[in-house]
Amino acid sequence: MIKARITVTLKNGVLDPQGKAIEHALQGLGFDDVGSVRQGKVFDLELSGTDRDRAESELRSMCDRLLANTVIENYSIAVS
Amino acid sequence: MIKARITVTLKNGVLDPQGKAIEHALQGLGFDDVGSVRQGKVFDLELSGTDRDRAESELRSMCDRLLANTVIENYSIAVS
Repeated sequence: MIKARITVTLKNGVLDPQGKAIEHALQGLGFDDVGSVRQGKVFDLELSGTDRDRAESELRSMCDRLLANTVIENYSIAVS
Repeated sequence: MIKARITVTLKNGVLDPQGKAIEHALQGLGFDDVGSVRQGKVFDLELSGTDRDRAESELRSMCDRLLANTVIENYSIAVS
């Protein structure tokens, strides 16, 4: 079994109102050091099989087809 | 300036219907190797200052007070 973590984040320049709201909430709680906050998503997957190269190419395909909107999001894949 | 990434994931045993929906969607797309999918959140923060220890303790406090629900979620902090 292969475990993988996919992290999807907004591309630079794409507005992130959710991150902005969190930034303001943190500053409101007194965390004055907080500069910017951007929120993203993480997916922890378990894949059957043991071929890491095949898994990585499948994971890239999953990101392109479903997990990330590559127009506005970047993704990174870590296989462990 | 200090950059940090906070990753918030559901604890083991906590139901994740969103992850389940993604799992079924991936299997529906033909990714038969997919076992389980769990979804979490990631926050990329920029903090002013250069004291890493102080930043880490502030980040832990942010997680406990706002970013994570520690009853059902774990968090990890990576300062770069």
